[in-house]
Formats: sequence, C-alpha cells, structure tokens
Amino acid sequence: MKVVKFGGSSLASGEQVKKVFDIVVSDADRKIVVVSAPGKRFADDRKVTDLLIELGDRQLKGLQTAEILAAVVLRYAQIAEELRLPGEIVSSIKDHLLQLLHKDSSNEARYIDAIKASGEDCNARLIAAYFQSRGVQAAYVDPKAAGLLVEETAGTALVLKEAYTNLRSLSEWPGILIFPGFFGYNEAGEVVTFSRSGSDITGSILANGTGAALYENFTDVDAVYSVNPNTVPNPKEIRELTYREMRELSYAGFSVFHDEALIPAFEAGIPVQIKNTNNPAAPGTRIVNERKNTNGPVIGIASDDDFCSIYVNKYLMNKEIGFGRKLLSILEDFGLTYEHSPSGIDDLSIILRQKQMTPDTEKQIIARIEADLLPDEVKVEHNLSLIMMVGEGMRHNIGTAARASKALADAGVNIEMINQGSSEVSMMFGVKEAQEKRAVQALYEEFFARVLA
Amino acid sequence: MKVVKFGGSSLASGEQVKKVFDIVVSDADRKIVVVSAPGKRFADDRKVTDLLIELGDRQLKGLQTAEILAAVVLRYAQIAEELRLPGEIVSSIKDHLLQLLHKDSSNEARYIDAIKASGEDCNARLIAAYFQSRGVQAAYVDPKAAGLLVEETAGTALVLKEAYTNLRSLSEWPGILIFPGFFGYNEAGEVVTFSRSGSDITGSILANGTGAALYENFTDVDAVYSVNPNTVPNPKEIRELTYREMRELSYAGFSVFHDEALIPAFEAGIPVQIKNTNNPAAPGTRIVNERKNTNGPVIGIASDDDFCSIYVNKYLMNKEIGFGRKLLSILEDFGLTYEHSPSGIDDLSIILRQKQMTPDTEKQIIARIEADLLPDEVKVEHNLSLIMMVGEGMRHNIGTAARASKALADAGVNIEMINQGSSEVSMMFGVKEAQEKRAVQALYEEFFARVLA
Repeated sequence: MKVVKFGGSSLASGEQVKKVFDIVVSDADRKIVVVSAPGKRFADDRKVTDLLIELGDRQLKGLQTAEILAAVVLRYAQIAEELRLPGEIVSSIKDHLLQLLHKDSSNEARYIDAIKASGEDCNARLIAAYFQSRGVQAAYVDPKAAGLLVEETAGTALVLKEAYTNLRSLSEWPGILIFPGFFGYNEAGEVVTFSRSGSDITGSILANGTGAALYENFTDVDAVYSVNPNTVPNPKEIRELTYREMRELSYAGFSVFHDEALIPAFEAGIPVQIKNTNNPAAPGTRIVNERKNTNGPVIGIASDDDFCSIYVNKYLMNKEIGFGRKLLSILEDFGLTYEHSPSGIDDLSIILRQKQMTPDTEKQIIARIEADLLPDEVKVEHNLSLIMMVGEGMRHNIGTAARASKALADAGVNIEMINQGSSEVSMMFGVKEAQEKRAVQALYEEFFARVLA
Repeated sequence: MKVVKFGGSSLASGEQVKKVFDIVVSDADRKIVVVSAPGKRFADDRKVTDLLIELGDRQLKGLQTAEILAAVVLRYAQIAEELRLPGEIVSSIKDHLLQLLHKDSSNEARYIDAIKASGEDCNARLIAAYFQSRGVQAAYVDPKAAGLLVEETAGTALVLKEAYTNLRSLSEWPGILIFPGFFGYNEAGEVVTFSRSGSDITGSILANGTGAALYENFTDVDAVYSVNPNTVPNPKEIRELTYREMRELSYAGFSVFHDEALIPAFEAGIPVQIKNTNNPAAPGTRIVNERKNTNGPVIGIASDDDFCSIYVNKYLMNKEIGFGRKLLSILEDFGLTYEHSPSGIDDLSIILRQKQMTPDTEKQIIARIEADLLPDEVKVEHNLSLIMMVGEGMRHNIGTAARASKALADAGVNIEMINQGSSEVSMMFGVKEAQEKRAVQALYEEFFARVLA
C-alpha cells in the first residue's frame, strides 16, 4: 500500500486533476491520496491558500470580503467546470466558506487556521467527487473522523502519538481515500495547521500511521537535482539519496520539500519517492535510509545566502575557561541560533543567519560582548553564503576537500571559511555572497560535469 | 640599547660563558644581560634548576640533602674553575644555598621558589664576577633593588605595573648589568618565580621597562625553523615573523620559547631577535609587529598530538537554542578547556587536549551529556593531531587551502577536520596521530621545498 501526496501545482486546474486521477488509478497500491489546495497555474497566479489568508484577514479587520471570496470560489468553479462536475459542489464549497467566515473569531489563530485549511479540505471533497464521477470507488476522509490529533506548539500543529494509532485503520477502509493535507484537529476539535509545506507532513504522518510500503510525493519536478537548476542549467538528477543527505541539502536552500516533513516516514523506515505529476514516467528520486555509494563522494551541492559572522578576538582566549560558552550565552539571551563557530587560538567566529538581527540588536549584542568578555576586537561581517557539499561516506574519501578547494581557487573564489569534521556527510564552505554562484558552478563542474564527460 | 637574554644551554659551562662574554662585548648596545641558571651540557645532563627543585623537596621531606647540594655546588665550581675565578665565589654560593635551605619553610611555595630562583641568582653573580675579571665594567643587579615587583597568581609570578616604572632607570646605571632571570619579588619581599622559561619573561619585562630598541634572545638554534627539524631534515629558516605568527606556531608545539614571554616586549612594540650563542654570526630570526609578505602564504608549519574529539549528534540540533552552550557548560563544569568545535547541522564536535580527561572523567562527561542533552549519539575519538599552517595574509591568498588539502590527499592522509575562517593567519587540519608526520612532511614539501627547487 502506498500513500500518495500531490502538491498545489499538481492540483491547480482540472487538467492537472485529470493527470492525478490517471496516476492514482494506474497503480492499485495507491490507496491513500493526500491533496494540497489548488496552487499556481502560471507564475503570477495566486495560490488558493494565499487568497484564503487574505480573506480571513480582511474579515478580522472588518474590510469587505466579497471580491476575495469570489476569487476563491471561482478557482473551484473553474476546476469543477473543466472536470464536468455538477454545480452543487461549488455552491456547497461557497456555503462552507461563508460559514467559516462568520464563525466566532475570538481566538484569531484558530479562526484563521480553519479558513486556511479549507483550501485543502474543499479540494479533497472536490477531488473525491471527481474520482467518483469517473466510476471509481473513492471517498473524502475527514481528518477529524480519521483521528488526526495534533496539539498547537509555537503556532503550528505537532502530531500526537494517538494520531498514529487512530490512523492505522485507514488502510482497511474501502476504496481510494482522498485526504486533505496541511491540518489536524486539537483535543477541543479545532483546526490547527502544520507549517507551510504542511501537506507533505500529512502524507508522511499517514504513511507512518498506516504502515505504507512507500510514500510517493508528486510535485512538478522530474527529480531532486544535484544542484539548483537556476545556478547550473540541466543539472544531473539524483536517483537515490539518504534521509541524512536530503536533510543537509534542505538546510542550505534545497526547496523540494521541507526535510522535517520526512520525520514521521523516516521514523517508520518508509522510503519516500519524489515524482513529477506532469511526467509520471520519469523515475524521480527515492529517499531511503541507506544507499550504496556508487556516484562518487558528492551527491548534491546546495547553497544559501544571508549569513553573517561575529568575529571576536582576545589575546590568550584559549586559556580562558568558559569563553566560548559565555559568548554563546549572550547570543542565547537575544534568542539567536547560530550555525557554526570556527575558532583560532585567540579568536572565535560565530556564523548565523543575519535576518535574526536588526541593526539595533546587532549593536546591542556587540555592546554586551564588549562589556562581558572584554575582547580586543569584535566585528560583524555581513553577506556571507554557505555552500554545502553533501554525500554519504564523504568523510572517508581522501581528496574530496582538495578537489573542492582547488576548484574554488581555480575559479578565483576566496574561501572565507571551511567547516569540515563533524558531519560525516557534508563539507561546508563560506564565501562572500557575490561569489556564491560562481563557487557552486565550480564545484558542480568538478564533481559532476567532469564525471559525465 | 639592547636587552640580551641567554638561556641555560648558553651558560652550561665556562666555555659557554666565554662565548657569552664575547657576544656581549662585541656590541656596545648590549647593556642589560639576563641570565638563566646553568643548563644541560649534554643530553643526559641535569639542569641546575632541576637539581635545586630536588634539593628543596628533599629538605621539606626531611631527607638528606648533602649529595644533591654537592652536585649543585660542583656545577658552579666547574664553571668557576674553567673561568679561572677565585674559589671564594663558589664558597659564597654554597653559603647562600645553605642559608636558603635552613630558612623558615612554613610557606612551602615561597620556600621552594627562593631555592629554585637561586640558580639564576647565583649564576648572575658568578657571570658578573667573570665579566669584571675580564676588565669590563659590569655589575650583578639584585631584582629586589631594581624593583622587579610581582604578585603571585595561580602559582606563578605576574609582573606589576610599578615594576616597569622602577626598571626604567636601569638604562642609566653604569656598565653592563647582569640580571638574573626567572623571578621577581612580591610586596612582602619574597621571591616568586615565573613559569618555566621564566628568564625569557624577565628579558621581555626589562626590554619594556627600559624602552630597549631590541630584545635579543640567545639560545642554541640558528633560527626559528619553518617546521620541526625532527620531522623534516634541514628545514628552511624563518628570517622574520610576526608576533601573531609566532604565537600560532607556539601553540602547536613550536618550542623555541613560550609565546606569552613575549607579551611585555610585544606591548611596547619592541622587536625580538632570536640568535644562536654557538653561532652568533647566523642572522637568526626577528619577531616583529608587522612584516612584508615576501615568502608566499605560509611561513611555518607546526603540529601537536594528544587531542581527542567528543562527537555529539542529535536530530534537529540546530533548532535547539542553547544546545552548543549547554554542551560547553558541561565541559566547563569538569574544568576542561576546548580548542575547536566544528559543527554540522545535527552534530557538534569538541576538540580538546585529551590529557585533561582520565578514562573515568571521560565516562562521567559522556553520562552528563547523555542525561542533560538527550543526544542520539555521543562518542569520543582519541589520538588526533592538529597541524597548524601559519602565515600572515594567508586568508586572502586564494588557493592555499586547495594546495594544502591536495598535498595531504596526494600523501594519502585523510583529513579528519579542517578549521579555517576565524584566524586570519592560520589554517588548521586535524588528522590521526599515526598520519601526523607524513602530513607535516607533505605540507612542507608543497609550501617550502618546491619554492627552493
């Protein structure tokens, strides 16, 4: 049995929904289908979820909502028309939205969550109706009835253990089950949404709960690429990668999906297959627990910008017990997380995402460091990029660092920082943002293009 | 005016003292001469300071002291005889030692310090007498009379600010001044010794206090070498290096002298010239504030062994505010200092000198980490070496990391860790101890041997 998830772009129009139908019915194991809200049909299009957020916001602010409500309903109407579904479907969606809109809004978070989640919920109802219209046994599943219990933690839903037990019986329900992604219900029976990409999380939870053999995640790319196609045209596709590799790649800007969405599937040892709704024949990318290393040391290269470094220098720092700990405590007092901390004998740098600091907090932090640690020098360097080279077994491949740093040197890229030695599956280089693209291209050239040639 | 310091091996015999005399009188600027206690004459010889420590210890324990006292006195007697000095010098030294030996020993630290320091003190008296016997105006200077005030901190002497003011007038004293190294006097008038290599510190303090133009430090090597001669035969000599480079090299096992000894000279901007007593014509090595970079990116390569790494892995570690700080707090609770902490997304390693931990404390630390941080994995890897490549401006020399890591790869050395990015004058590689020597040789070959060829 497989859990199959379709993203917003796979469900943006009636034509797309027909593809989804063909994909699902072509494999009898595809039993549980998790759906997103209709996404973008073209670059400037708006996702239904974004329209819904605006709808809820306007209502809370007492602004008129007729236009934005009409825009949402129109999206469903267009899909229903393309799929030749009866008009009642659309009017029931409109009634449902109006009902949500006029509910008690004293708890704003729960109020907005219910409206946001209706994008998935209405779409699941519509798609179940379409499957039925094609003569297939299919049913919409209400997450509340299925027992997808969550609790609200720091603004987003966290699945409860009981949910897995509750969901187990789903595999015994008859026919194809259309399950809305993105949300669950708390003990009070209120909707709580997962973070963005929440449909991926729903699919992962269902795969775990039902003990699926595979979690198929349909999106709009043929595969996970070894590097961002905006940086290197037509990059090599990755056929198989491990959870750890996926996680390290996700960290540095790979956005196929959010790696934390994989945790439930990961914990149950269920492989994840990424496939393309628009080209289901393409083999896609499989994410597994372990893989045979046949591709050389590097499987992917990712990068992310907007980092800065706080450099602290103090003579005889390395004799001062607690220096590093005190520095990290100051960051913690300001609620900052840090990524890396390369160190010399008398100096320590902290690399962090710079959007965490306003110019004002930056000044305060420097002042605290100066007052508490009496350093000889403190300075902040902005606009750094981190480049992550990822691959299982990289650590024990002699010469990977040499090939990478030579490729960067040959491309005229100055390495501001190298961090290698803790993770066994990645090696990180810090460069100035202006050199990021060139650096990634040079590394790709070294580890992928030459292999193909 | 120059302050000139001679180490123990430069003063181990009458023959050596004659060389010292010739060196001092050959340059009229050499006014203040700081002397150590007589050192080793041959590999198995014992330094006078070591004999004196044993002497004091035996007396404190109530053991007989006649033999060890005789051994100390014999050393001075042999030097005096070679230098044809009258026997009264030696008997006054013996009387002085007996007097120290039978002093109140209720404060054991001060008691032992006074006996230890007598090695330098007696030697300074003897050498002043020799200079006088050669018809030169020379005088022994009592550090108490000169005002070398210190306070005892954590078992060693720390110079007080007043000392510099007190010492200023020394440059106006007539003739050549022979000043014993290694100790000063606290406010109570008691001897307190500096850490080992304390004569270097005395010379550095005198250079600062008297505003010397140069601090010459005579030892038994022609120069600071670019790499340990035990690892690479006949390595290139370093003509000029900066304080920062010296410090980074000292850290990783370069033992020409302890870098902290340089602080007083460093603070006054006084250059330090390292020269060889046995080959004063050799140009030696000058340590300066700034230098022109004409030698390529690397000036020296040092390495040190006996490090270990504590590896901690926890899924989603980088989202956990305070994780790194908590880990460092645990080390701090055990009184441990750490050297570096390379990090991945879900893992953090702490590199530290392994002699700080017994197998028992290691177990306790692991247990604390497991209990407090709930990691997925903790492990300790032993027997690592750190290799430091040092050179001003290295950071901005594109390709240095590439050359280094390629040289290591070609030599079959697996890089366990790279730490680059905080210090601007060094780059560090972690390797297994068994590969340390090969790694250093490969780096030397890359950055020095090829340049010469």
